[in-house]
Amino acid sequence: MPLIQVDLRRELFDSSHDQISRALQTAGEEALGTPTDDLFQVFRPRDEGELKFDPTYNGVDRRDMVLIQVLAVHMHPVSAKQAFFRKVVEHLGEVGVRPADIHIALAENGFEDWYAGRA
Amino acid sequence: MPLIQVDLRRELFDSSHDQISRALQTAGEEALGTPTDDLFQVFRPRDEGELKFDPTYNGVDRRDMVLIQVLAVHMHPVSAKQAFFRKVVEHLGEVGVRPADIHIALAENGFEDWYAGRA
Amino acid sequence: MPLIQVDLRRELFDSSHDQISRALQTAGEEALGTPTDDLFQVFRPRDEGELKFDPTYNGVDRRDMVLIQVLAVHMHPVSAKQAFFRKVVEHLGEVGVRPADIHIALAENGFEDWYAGRA
Repeated sequence: MPLIQVDLRRELFDSSHDQISRALQTAGEEALGTPTDDLFQVFRPRDEGELKFDPTYNGVDRRDMVLIQVLAVHMHPVSAKQAFFRKVVEHLGEVGVRPADIHIALAENGFEDWYAGRA
Repeated sequence: MPLIQVDLRRELFDSSHDQISRALQTAGEEALGTPTDDLFQVFRPRDEGELKFDPTYNGVDRRDMVLIQVLAVHMHPVSAKQAFFRKVVEHLGEVGVRPADIHIALAENGFEDWYAGRA
Repeated sequence: MPLIQVDLRRELFDSSHDQISRALQTAGEEALGTPTDDLFQVFRPRDEGELKFDPTYNGVDRRDMVLIQVLAVHMHPVSAKQAFFRKVVEHLGEVGVRPADIHIALAENGFEDWYAGRA
């Protein structure tokens, strides 16, 4: 039951939220084995001044920030996390999001830390 | 000092935010022993397309998503977390929120990870 | 790569978001050794009823809530976290934010849990 939270420019949300949603879900399916219907995402469109970032940190040409937070059960090896990041970059690229503009932060909890519609 | 974050449809926020707030706080009091005045909540009303979920994942008839994130100190046994989920479902039910529409994700940190108005 | 998320009253965001951004980044530089250009922040302006808190919990005179969430790699000793809280209070004070109105929650993950513009 990974939970995905996305803060992004409102214009990008308006033009592409369904495609971004599918790109992220596909990346989870391919790299983490997330079932297709295990879909829990919240998109938070951001207005001027709400996203703050440095344009060159980590040696890239950053022009925007698509902030993706993933909360997932602690069970994925580092290699699967790295594959997930690659897949997110690949599939968001197909939607026109530049790799340099993607920022992902993953956090973990336990199986016992979720309620998904029934006990 | 649990922090509660709720992303929910704007219409539900407008009609019921105070009742939902009380329901969540009551659940924490009853299941986790949270003091009544230990209240820190943020509600984030969401518009069309911002909440994405599958209508049947986990074998339920899901028609909406009330996304509740709890950040709490790592100290509660699994049984208390399960009791908390049950109490949330019970008290949100009294406000008219369907159990299938509730999604809860709990994450944990340490006592030393909080600042609450004074050092 | 600490990620900083701030939920705050819209009026305070409008008047002071750049100053608050700098205050938080400066606190990270001084207490956690965060590089100046390691800047990833999201501000989420909140409207009436969206921030819920008790005015006196923890023995303070709380009139507002500036909610600051920090996600950082697990590597800072408790003393550095405490220094960070003090520095946030100091620098936000210079912007006119009262210590009693500040609420900080820190959560941690691993080095392998980040993607920042490139693999």
